[in-house]
Amino acid sequence: MFIVIMAGGSGTRFWPLSRKYKPKQFLNIIGNDPMIIETYKRISSLTDDKNICIILGKEHFEEAKKLFCKNAIHIIAEPYGRNTAPCIALGALYASYLGHKGAIAFLPADHYIANNEIFLNSLRVAGKVATSSKCIVTLGIVPIRPETGYGYIKIDGISTKIDGYKVYKVQEFVEKPDIDTAQIYLQSKKYYWNSGIFIARPSTILEEIKRYIPKLYKAIMGLKDYFNTKQFEFMLREAYKEIPNISFDYGVMEKTDTDIYVLPTECGWSDVGSWLSIYYLRKKEQDINSNLIDGDVINIDCKNSFINARGNRFIACIGLNRLLIVDTPDALLVADINRSQDVRNIVDLLKKRGKTEYI
Amino acid sequence: MFIVIMAGGSGTRFWPLSRKYKPKQFLNIIGNDPMIIETYKRISSLTDDKNICIILGKEHFEEAKKLFCKNAIHIIAEPYGRNTAPCIALGALYASYLGHKGAIAFLPADHYIANNEIFLNSLRVAGKVATSSKCIVTLGIVPIRPETGYGYIKIDGISTKIDGYKVYKVQEFVEKPDIDTAQIYLQSKKYYWNSGIFIARPSTILEEIKRYIPKLYKAIMGLKDYFNTKQFEFMLREAYKEIPNISFDYGVMEKTDTDIYVLPTECGWSDVGSWLSIYYLRKKEQDINSNLIDGDVINIDCKNSFINARGNRFIACIGLNRLLIVDTPDALLVADINRSQDVRNIVDLLKKRGKTEYI
Repeated sequence: MFIVIMAGGSGTRFWPLSRKYKPKQFLNIIGNDPMIIETYKRISSLTDDKNICIILGKEHFEEAKKLFCKNAIHIIAEPYGRNTAPCIALGALYASYLGHKGAIAFLPADHYIANNEIFLNSLRVAGKVATSSKCIVTLGIVPIRPETGYGYIKIDGISTKIDGYKVYKVQEFVEKPDIDTAQIYLQSKKYYWNSGIFIARPSTILEEIKRYIPKLYKAIMGLKDYFNTKQFEFMLREAYKEIPNISFDYGVMEKTDTDIYVLPTECGWSDVGSWLSIYYLRKKEQDINSNLIDGDVINIDCKNSFINARGNRFIACIGLNRLLIVDTPDALLVADINRSQDVRNIVDLLKKRGKTEYI
Repeated sequence: MFIVIMAGGSGTRFWPLSRKYKPKQFLNIIGNDPMIIETYKRISSLTDDKNICIILGKEHFEEAKKLFCKNAIHIIAEPYGRNTAPCIALGALYASYLGHKGAIAFLPADHYIANNEIFLNSLRVAGKVATSSKCIVTLGIVPIRPETGYGYIKIDGISTKIDGYKVYKVQEFVEKPDIDTAQIYLQSKKYYWNSGIFIARPSTILEEIKRYIPKLYKAIMGLKDYFNTKQFEFMLREAYKEIPNISFDYGVMEKTDTDIYVLPTECGWSDVGSWLSIYYLRKKEQDINSNLIDGDVINIDCKNSFINARGNRFIACIGLNRLLIVDTPDALLVADINRSQDVRNIVDLLKKRGKTEYI
């Protein structure tokens, strides 16, 4: 199997820890290593390093080279982010250039998986399906709560069983629901969370791109002759001037009449979308009053709070409830933990006010 | 009039801004200057510098000498704090040594006065009363709310009018009341807040000390011959080994049968006892959502909060209500603003845990 780790994205929701040059995937925000390393380690038993390619923004290229200096993986730097479709097209083209004809798994670099064994088995089965025919297989996460922060995948109800895993045909991709709709989805058992992880042959991806995003196809196909040459960086920059900013979900998945399957999995997946999600994911580390505390902190009568002291400073807290504190050497965030989705608004305001030193 | 500014005390309730070597009276916690300077400036029109004496802990002696390097005031350093009675006895003895026979006003260095004109007039009238007979005159603050954080002075109801100010005999000093009792006190109009500011002749003070705290009297009387000599520091240290740790209120005021008067005043006094009191005192500086913000802060949807950014760091806040944030370079406090009385507990915990670097 070939693996493309998609490591673009700025991760403004983890401000002030995440910054322009240190987005979420380069932070050890959960676990012991930066998320991109955790992602690599998670799948490294599936395939050789030479079958792994990381695609990221050029501002993070040096950082990634350092992190993976001992691994013979491939790293491609996009001149700038253009959403997922160009990245996926590039990954498919590169795998194809390397001679791969079997399945490619496309994995975001900044997701969390609690149960790796189930995850790898799901990937293997999905790979088998994707190799056997022209189709795209997505991993669907079995919902465990009426989540409004994720998109959903609706199935048609007829399953095929492969190596103990059921595989369904996708009927529809649906947007993030409101809470009532999410409740209905949860109970219906016909909806899965869209993990953004999918598997397909390079030829399938490139054919889909050609048909549904022809402008993108035209812009990148010429690159095949330049991979691993001195001209590649220049050619890629030229190509990116022409390519549209579009997601693969929107540009291809929601439109195609090619078979799309979903393989439901209960691997304990999370997209780690906010500080609140980390607070939940690290439930076992919470104290008796449901506080999650990192660093040098004294707390008196606090509950349900997440205190992240990474600024080498001492923090004292009194009487807090459902509060989020993230301390870094030059910037501090204090927020209602239920407002952690709004952290990105702080970054927007910082941009507006020209306070680029904190972005 | 002779003035004794009492500048002992550690001010742990203003942690993390106040520290052992920088207690409240040396901070510009409200106003433009350190509180001790504000106190000095407030009364400097009443008398000459040579009639002003500051008494403080020896760990703050150098700081005070620097602050007052251009003023010919007296500064006496206690070897360690022993509550107010020894400080007051020392002040009275020193004034007496300098030849003063008229009234001395004893003023804490860390109080806030909104209306200085009324305050100074009150002091002048109190000084007139205290000079004319053997008595102690305290300033009583006309209560404006059912405050549970102050001690109260009860009057007997018969007043004498002097220069437009009423003066009452004190019937009783009462401890901090609960809220219901405070409400009764407020309505009765027979109770005033005990400001801790009082005026008396040096001879009166020393006679009272001799009668009610003889051990203190005995320990300090010998010092009179050593003021402004090289031996003074040594002699004072020896004397302090013998003296009891006792407040003048408890040791003298509540016991004496000498006349004690109260002069009610509406000078906008506050003892500035907590971060919450500063939040209230600076009401005019609050924004439309009742936030009081110092420093480089972005706030989204916050209300009723006090954000004090003195740590040279940027602070972002989202969705806070009634929160207190005090940021300093090495330590941060985040608290329910209604719990600001409990800040001293943090200092106690720091002591217990041996984290002396933050005290």
